[in-house]
Amino acid sequence: MAAGSTIGTLFKITTWGESHGKAVGVVVDGCPAGLALSEEDIQVYLDRRKPGQSKFTTQRKESDQVEILSGVFEGKTTGTPISMLVYNKDQRSKDYSEIASMYRPGHADYTFDAKFDFRDYRGGGRSSARETIARVAGGAVAMKALKELGVDIFAYTKSIGSVQCKDENFDRTFIGENRLAMPDRDAVKEAEAYLETMMEQKDSSGGIVECQIHGIPAGVGEPVFDKLSASLAKGIGSIGAVKGFEIGEGFLAAIRNGSTNNDQFYYDEEGKLQKATNHAGGILGGMSDGSPVVLRAAFKPTPSIAKMQKTVNQKGENIETSIKGRHDPIVVPRAVVVVEAMAAVTVLDMMLVSMTSRIDKVKAFFLS
Amino acid sequence: MAAGSTIGTLFKITTWGESHGKAVGVVVDGCPAGLALSEEDIQVYLDRRKPGQSKFTTQRKESDQVEILSGVFEGKTTGTPISMLVYNKDQRSKDYSEIASMYRPGHADYTFDAKFDFRDYRGGGRSSARETIARVAGGAVAMKALKELGVDIFAYTKSIGSVQCKDENFDRTFIGENRLAMPDRDAVKEAEAYLETMMEQKDSSGGIVECQIHGIPAGVGEPVFDKLSASLAKGIGSIGAVKGFEIGEGFLAAIRNGSTNNDQFYYDEEGKLQKATNHAGGILGGMSDGSPVVLRAAFKPTPSIAKMQKTVNQKGENIETSIKGRHDPIVVPRAVVVVEAMAAVTVLDMMLVSMTSRIDKVKAFFLS
Amino acid sequence: MAAGSTIGTLFKITTWGESHGKAVGVVVDGCPAGLALSEEDIQVYLDRRKPGQSKFTTQRKESDQVEILSGVFEGKTTGTPISMLVYNKDQRSKDYSEIASMYRPGHADYTFDAKFDFRDYRGGGRSSARETIARVAGGAVAMKALKELGVDIFAYTKSIGSVQCKDENFDRTFIGENRLAMPDRDAVKEAEAYLETMMEQKDSSGGIVECQIHGIPAGVGEPVFDKLSASLAKGIGSIGAVKGFEIGEGFLAAIRNGSTNNDQFYYDEEGKLQKATNHAGGILGGMSDGSPVVLRAAFKPTPSIAKMQKTVNQKGENIETSIKGRHDPIVVPRAVVVVEAMAAVTVLDMMLVSMTSRIDKVKAFFLS
Amino acid sequence: MAAGSTIGTLFKITTWGESHGKAVGVVVDGCPAGLALSEEDIQVYLDRRKPGQSKFTTQRKESDQVEILSGVFEGKTTGTPISMLVYNKDQRSKDYSEIASMYRPGHADYTFDAKFDFRDYRGGGRSSARETIARVAGGAVAMKALKELGVDIFAYTKSIGSVQCKDENFDRTFIGENRLAMPDRDAVKEAEAYLETMMEQKDSSGGIVECQIHGIPAGVGEPVFDKLSASLAKGIGSIGAVKGFEIGEGFLAAIRNGSTNNDQFYYDEEGKLQKATNHAGGILGGMSDGSPVVLRAAFKPTPSIAKMQKTVNQKGENIETSIKGRHDPIVVPRAVVVVEAMAAVTVLDMMLVSMTSRIDKVKAFFLS
Repeated sequence: MAAGSTIGTLFKITTWGESHGKAVGVVVDGCPAGLALSEEDIQVYLDRRKPGQSKFTTQRKESDQVEILSGVFEGKTTGTPISMLVYNKDQRSKDYSEIASMYRPGHADYTFDAKFDFRDYRGGGRSSARETIARVAGGAVAMKALKELGVDIFAYTKSIGSVQCKDENFDRTFIGENRLAMPDRDAVKEAEAYLETMMEQKDSSGGIVECQIHGIPAGVGEPVFDKLSASLAKGIGSIGAVKGFEIGEGFLAAIRNGSTNNDQFYYDEEGKLQKATNHAGGILGGMSDGSPVVLRAAFKPTPSIAKMQKTVNQKGENIETSIKGRHDPIVVPRAVVVVEAMAAVTVLDMMLVSMTSRIDKVKAFFLS
Repeated sequence: MAAGSTIGTLFKITTWGESHGKAVGVVVDGCPAGLALSEEDIQVYLDRRKPGQSKFTTQRKESDQVEILSGVFEGKTTGTPISMLVYNKDQRSKDYSEIASMYRPGHADYTFDAKFDFRDYRGGGRSSARETIARVAGGAVAMKALKELGVDIFAYTKSIGSVQCKDENFDRTFIGENRLAMPDRDAVKEAEAYLETMMEQKDSSGGIVECQIHGIPAGVGEPVFDKLSASLAKGIGSIGAVKGFEIGEGFLAAIRNGSTNNDQFYYDEEGKLQKATNHAGGILGGMSDGSPVVLRAAFKPTPSIAKMQKTVNQKGENIETSIKGRHDPIVVPRAVVVVEAMAAVTVLDMMLVSMTSRIDKVKAFFLS
Repeated sequence: MAAGSTIGTLFKITTWGESHGKAVGVVVDGCPAGLALSEEDIQVYLDRRKPGQSKFTTQRKESDQVEILSGVFEGKTTGTPISMLVYNKDQRSKDYSEIASMYRPGHADYTFDAKFDFRDYRGGGRSSARETIARVAGGAVAMKALKELGVDIFAYTKSIGSVQCKDENFDRTFIGENRLAMPDRDAVKEAEAYLETMMEQKDSSGGIVECQIHGIPAGVGEPVFDKLSASLAKGIGSIGAVKGFEIGEGFLAAIRNGSTNNDQFYYDEEGKLQKATNHAGGILGGMSDGSPVVLRAAFKPTPSIAKMQKTVNQKGENIETSIKGRHDPIVVPRAVVVVEAMAAVTVLDMMLVSMTSRIDKVKAFFLS
Repeated sequence: MAAGSTIGTLFKITTWGESHGKAVGVVVDGCPAGLALSEEDIQVYLDRRKPGQSKFTTQRKESDQVEILSGVFEGKTTGTPISMLVYNKDQRSKDYSEIASMYRPGHADYTFDAKFDFRDYRGGGRSSARETIARVAGGAVAMKALKELGVDIFAYTKSIGSVQCKDENFDRTFIGENRLAMPDRDAVKEAEAYLETMMEQKDSSGGIVECQIHGIPAGVGEPVFDKLSASLAKGIGSIGAVKGFEIGEGFLAAIRNGSTNNDQFYYDEEGKLQKATNHAGGILGGMSDGSPVVLRAAFKPTPSIAKMQKTVNQKGENIETSIKGRHDPIVVPRAVVVVEAMAAVTVLDMMLVSMTSRIDKVKAFFLS
């Protein structure tokens, strides 16, 4: 928990880069050797978070092409660090000169100055959403490894403002077909209408991303501080704009009773242990129970709004400001792939750690 | 994130112990030297989580007296590890023999077996609530240090089932005066009635703990993965039974707009930077903004209920069970001090880390 | 590298305790579950470092009986932390009152005060050799696990002063049969005579411990910072009084040529890759090469000597002192088991880490 | 200790890159904000390790120009990660095609294959000396910060083969004026003659680097596992080709007596605590004592020699090989700056950690 640009124990990612510096990037350390990996494997994920794809996302034109600089040889990972970067092309620093001396409401301008006495104010610097490029690139590597291990992760927009996707309308294939990344055709229309209103009002909206992780074997996660749930809470809670996190029933569990919240176990016809329900969201005592892990993250509304707001500048003056430039009225659709990335990084790391939990399996690994 | 019984970077706690082993304990490493510390400082916190204090908590009789075994000399910390333990006196192993071969719904019995192929089944073993004794003892040390640094942390029961404490009724002094640790006199009566109904129905209830942290200077927390919010999410999310975590507006932020969710900055009459509201819960861009940090954790209902439930045993049989013995119908009141402890451990650690963020301050530290 | 009482990534030990506090102890976290473990397994190692066993070791009478407080159930490790402690019985604090205000030459008295402004001066406090009890207890657990994995570790006194054991006289069984832990019958006599002279002169001697590790499979250790050699250098270099560390030829390699220092590879009759020599000490590029790992640690002479020495006290006075009480004229024989312990902790940890280096093996672990 | 491309707790460096990949680089995380830093600050260190500077170093022509990609704004560090890279220009992959299927004696070819089942064989891949570019770039940042804190680090060639620099001839300014980085004019001539003989014989030589660190305040380093000495042992012991490490008297301490090895304390005329000698090399009980830290690292002879050697290939054949291309007959002169870099990274990190050792100082930091 120091410096804080690295996460993970065995599978680690270290990110770097500011919005208007030369580039943003990530070093992935601890990826097992022999995994087939190409820039295209990474690019498909980056393209999902790319700006300028709809009227609801910023118009910044970035091709955001990833380059792999190390750790891959003859199309396979070598076990050594995979360094990847994306150059920042559309920097337009002039647009941001005004904010150099101002503390925008809801932004990290003030806290950066409080901590470092100094900040790269251009485009939000290190706290820009461009920082998530590095997370997504690192997550893409984890995702590729997890596929080999039979783990399937996917996220989607669960709600925008008060527009919620309904479980009965859930259609996974539809997620990739709409610009709001929702799995519910009806909800999309309603949400689009709501966002258009927000834009007209020079305002923005929050929302919720839900993520499902299928195929984690039972027993992943550690019993005390490094519970799978706690580690996901940190990994996903570290995404900018996340203000809440829950597993399974989450906050609803607080109003439930034991008899309705407990998931009853049973053996199915093939003798396999099953749960009648999944209120626990796939995690019991911090360890995966073999059911799908289901989690949700609450994102606050984009703080950059064109509406006039009161705030201050560094000269000690109370001022008013209206944030210029195009900004997403909602971060959620582009955050979906970031949630997947952080879930993938966390789950792969904890699966690797879990390989050492039993002496008989360790012995079999080395001696057979 | 491996093995997982240690948390922290500079101020670290390592916990150990099973419910029915000889003892439970904690090693606190990295506590600055020269802090006045006695067993009594620890005991006051342990007494707050002790069972048997009301009809809503288990009747297990444990004096839970802490012993400090190292790291304190002549009444002050020496800078070396502080080892503390509490012996398990009321072990009554026989009561638990039945559950040895059963997987209780909502418990970690199955996941422990899945991970380790083996578990200490007595009283829940490592996943027992007794594990939190070690967290509380470690947290008490952090709390003592934080007081020296001007930081004040307190938590309370925000809701039980659907009974919510109202902000307008908030009375901090009342928290310690009622057995549900609520700050609202009206809500307590309602909650007690609800819990009595639950007990009659052999059922249990979930609830929410809220925690306020005052006095953290601005700039604590790291900008990317080790955000103060993310680290609190992990520390508090690692408490057993926690299924949700939020900062400030939390999940409500997802239905807010930028214009209503942003906190406007202003300079007060003394020229001090203030925020007109605190929707952010004291954290912007992962770093403290000088306002109180406000967080909430959702606890699921106690899974141990006397009501008959369907489940399985290790022999491959589908069975029915009713959990015997007295169990708290709600964990929340006793979890309040555990939330405080994890908040204290996390905040102290991140404050220590933040001391190195500026070269001018580092230089002044060493050269003046 | 903070606080510094924990070492390891997957297999971790956290030590605590001062010489004259209530006890010293260790928490072992990350030991795989299912390993047969008893207090007797630990005690045999502790007995090897126990004082009072010969005229060359301190006469402090400590039974040093270990107690396991957690992490073992029905004779097997459970995968949860193993907490062990040894009570300090022979504390005789009065003997040490004089040194409270003095900085003994060659001791850590001054540096403790410089760092913490305060120290437990009784018997050296945290810097006492009793701290190694915790290392040995932790190492005993690692050793038990390593035996399951086919790894054999043993150390011995290589030299005392200028008395060196000769390779041609090497007799492993003799190590445990002499109080200097030497593998050479001739050297023992010479070394004993030398030590007796030292004692007559109220002086002490340094020496070298050599350690051999057989059975590590090729490929353990990480290529860059966490080389097996570098990790052993840290683990063993962290033992008090160690001033030098080398692998294989060590410092002699500095005067060798490539043609004489390189180990030539060949396939033996069974087609197994072998090395004609082992100048590398079993490590190439930081990773084990399948040959025995051979390392040496240089220990400085015991700083506590009865001879009169010049030094200072906290009052700003230059004084003379003669360290009272019986002290070992050499630490090496009792340090042999400590070197084994730190080697075991390091090797087991790095073997566990190495399980995740190949995607095909990770896949086979999870999917077969 | 996992994955192993990151080192440090508060000041961390993460390195990446293979000899013949696109580039090599480093991410420096945790550098305090506000430090003046330019590419030129880094380049002066890189130029000292650059090949092709004398007949004793490889003729590979690389300009090795560093680029800073993040973490520096308006000429000062921002507190966020500093990403730096150097492109690999002189790749000439064809030269290395022969070694793809061979295990060179003294190299990591075999151990890489044993670990990862696969390697980037071009130019040694990750185990190439080019990996040290990243260490030097990271070390340059640490060095710049340390200068602000009054710490001065410099290393030099202590010996080449059996040619030793004499203390009485020590001339610091001469180190930078000779291509062997020796501080002794007489020794240089002798060493050059020796190396020419080695080159004629198609052989190579080992040597020793010594490093002095002045200005570390007393009390840096942690008492148990993270001793300053142990951390330096790891940091410097992780440099490729290092086979031995010592502090102060090092291995000579093993043949010394307490009375001659102890450093006697005294107060000088100004009342300042001093040591009459510095056999301890500036570290007592793992913590700095205010004297200069003096350490040495033994480097093995370059394993790449033109002399014919026996070895094996992957086809199971015993073969003979003569390593083609120009290779340094000694790595030591170019390793001098790498030793400085790892010393700087380690010392800065431990100084930052030491800021939190006393509650009075922590309190003064936050409340004054």
